[in-house]
Amino acid sequence: MDLELVTVGTELLLGFTIDTNAAEIGRAVSAVGARVVRRASVGDDVQAIREAVADGLRRTGFVVVTGGLGPTTDDVTKRAVAELFDAPLEVHEEYLRELKDRFARYGRAPMPPSNRSQAEVPRGATVLHNPRGTAPGLLLEGELGAVMLLPGVPLEMRLMVEAHLVPLLERLAGSDPSARRVTRSRTLRTTGITESGLASGIAQVEQKLEDVSLAFLPGWDGVDLRLTAWNLPEERADVVLDRAEAALRPILGEHHYGVDETDLAGVVIDRLRERDLTLAVAESCTGGIVGARLTAMPGASDVFRGAVAAYANEIKIHLLGVPAGLIEAEGAVSEAVARAMAHGVSQACGSSAAVAVTGIAGPAGGTVEKPVGTVWLAATVGALARSRRVHFPGDREEVRHRAAQAALDLLRRLLS
Amino acid sequence: MDLELVTVGTELLLGFTIDTNAAEIGRAVSAVGARVVRRASVGDDVQAIREAVADGLRRTGFVVVTGGLGPTTDDVTKRAVAELFDAPLEVHEEYLRELKDRFARYGRAPMPPSNRSQAEVPRGATVLHNPRGTAPGLLLEGELGAVMLLPGVPLEMRLMVEAHLVPLLERLAGSDPSARRVTRSRTLRTTGITESGLASGIAQVEQKLEDVSLAFLPGWDGVDLRLTAWNLPEERADVVLDRAEAALRPILGEHHYGVDETDLAGVVIDRLRERDLTLAVAESCTGGIVGARLTAMPGASDVFRGAVAAYANEIKIHLLGVPAGLIEAEGAVSEAVARAMAHGVSQACGSSAAVAVTGIAGPAGGTVEKPVGTVWLAATVGALARSRRVHFPGDREEVRHRAAQAALDLLRRLLS
Repeated sequence: MDLELVTVGTELLLGFTIDTNAAEIGRAVSAVGARVVRRASVGDDVQAIREAVADGLRRTGFVVVTGGLGPTTDDVTKRAVAELFDAPLEVHEEYLRELKDRFARYGRAPMPPSNRSQAEVPRGATVLHNPRGTAPGLLLEGELGAVMLLPGVPLEMRLMVEAHLVPLLERLAGSDPSARRVTRSRTLRTTGITESGLASGIAQVEQKLEDVSLAFLPGWDGVDLRLTAWNLPEERADVVLDRAEAALRPILGEHHYGVDETDLAGVVIDRLRERDLTLAVAESCTGGIVGARLTAMPGASDVFRGAVAAYANEIKIHLLGVPAGLIEAEGAVSEAVARAMAHGVSQACGSSAAVAVTGIAGPAGGTVEKPVGTVWLAATVGALARSRRVHFPGDREEVRHRAAQAALDLLRRLLS
Repeated sequence: MDLELVTVGTELLLGFTIDTNAAEIGRAVSAVGARVVRRASVGDDVQAIREAVADGLRRTGFVVVTGGLGPTTDDVTKRAVAELFDAPLEVHEEYLRELKDRFARYGRAPMPPSNRSQAEVPRGATVLHNPRGTAPGLLLEGELGAVMLLPGVPLEMRLMVEAHLVPLLERLAGSDPSARRVTRSRTLRTTGITESGLASGIAQVEQKLEDVSLAFLPGWDGVDLRLTAWNLPEERADVVLDRAEAALRPILGEHHYGVDETDLAGVVIDRLRERDLTLAVAESCTGGIVGARLTAMPGASDVFRGAVAAYANEIKIHLLGVPAGLIEAEGAVSEAVARAMAHGVSQACGSSAAVAVTGIAGPAGGTVEKPVGTVWLAATVGALARSRRVHFPGDREEVRHRAAQAALDLLRRLLS
């Protein structure tokens, strides 16, 4: 089942808006075994839209269009597709009532006249309910093929892809789901190892992987390994991914911390919770990133007590009890100070575990011995302690984010 | 000057990769007065690439293609375009030498055989230097029109757009830069006012704006107002934007905090620095976001002393000196506690200014009187103090980010 995608909006062509809808629809479509074979973006222009949709119909017979369904004069998608299907726009009385009701419900009656156009529908089209917005989706079918129009607002689009597009594709694929071929992927997340280290480690297993391709995706959080099963029967795709994951995991070892969207901060919180531990954080160059990431996890309060961003040395001394002489002797970015910060914050917050970061994020502050990117990390869990010196590449933002991830990782490894 | 853009990669169609290159090229092209009239994405498939490029050439005579220039077997862009131009691929000896030199320079000699294909060039094509990668860009010109091939790696693409595409477009536009028409935009950032409040406030001025359109872009940081001057002579575009900004600023008043990419945290740091003040931050529900945003600014250490993320109530009591009885009587999310946190953190860190946030980010913890999204903010500057209760919509992530922005904004307003 091939289809094409047309995203509409002059802002897309000008680059003011990044086309995230196209990626999202691509994922949803391939997950149910259909395939986007081409996508196009055109401006808010009747002729350009009509041509792009006609091109797509000629090639595949099924086109999904997003955007240009709003109430303003530059929203012309409906008109373009109505022209193509030679179907005049008519007021859909039922939808008009629904629209008026909706405005009344939100205390915005009477409905602005401009919204009336949203109840105009090409003759013969099916109206698709939009739970979050005033623009209905539409499905047109004719000799040229089928066109589904969806709103461009990402949240509305997403809900309607689930509610209307995916079920339609499943219906079109036929009654036998086992006959369906899908493309699915799974990401194994790793951190603390380089891309080339990972590549050489798994080279042998990689060659033996059947029906699965591997992509290395290096980023600030580490290197993600994306496994993709291409164009396989649905059940087999999952089996193949499970098998590949099982083959890779022993090699990834401790570097592997989760699958797909898993955040390392969530892994750390879960491990602390399992062991009934509480956590405090001392940050210098990261200034709050470690605390912010941990508290982004719902339920963080079970284990997270607090954090001190000790940016100025006096704060390290007064709030964390780091001896002034230690900072003077070793420097604020040193193993001794990192350890003292971890110890101090755990005392100050009454926690059983702690992690500390101190480093030089740049652009200023580097020296020959401690260039920009130098970071000392320390973690404690009860009487256990571990520390580590790392040197990160990149600018201030990159160094800070990598340092926060490495701090969480040091703690995770100490907890295992 | 119209052109089309074709981005190549099966990963784009599957939605594994978001097409940021397309947006970036759109911005670069419109800034020099040319116009992307359609863009298409196709998979790593010779026929699909050839057809998409041919379609674009038929319509505009100039197509920019990104992606598919790497050394692996699925990189077929060069082959597709060579077929279309009927120009056989030939080894470009000079580039091959350069490539080998480059591998030698990085201690990776001999060059892997797969990279040899990157020195193959369609007969007659101009090789465009790629300062950051091994795939050269190419320019093909013929009866069909012109095609520029650029690598898909965003950093390489970006540098080559500046070095090759923009100068070519400027040359094509002719020798008289004043004859060039461009589309330019400028964003006025606001916070602390709703989209509809802003819209009604500026309705009168909006009607009088000449040659500038206005877009409201609401987000977690506030509502951005994007002014766009469409298709104007280059000099006039800037004049028109200056004039529109001058007309809007008095109406935006205190809600306006910066232009384009300005971060509110940077504005706060600048104001503190100007007045020789130092800052400390107390965070509860935001857990470190405010500190992280402030310390993201290079030079933050001039004014930022430190932050305490007092997640557990005991930390509010022990590190910030909030009276236990106050928390019991008023609740941790209350005006009195927010004020006590600001006062306490300024004492603990020895700062002259402070800001505090305490709220219920959810999903749990809401009550009838204080539902999820309720946040109390307090700020102090010397003897001045201000506090504010707000209620934010959205999930945990949204509430936390909006609360951090509102905290910075409370401090900014107190500083002005």
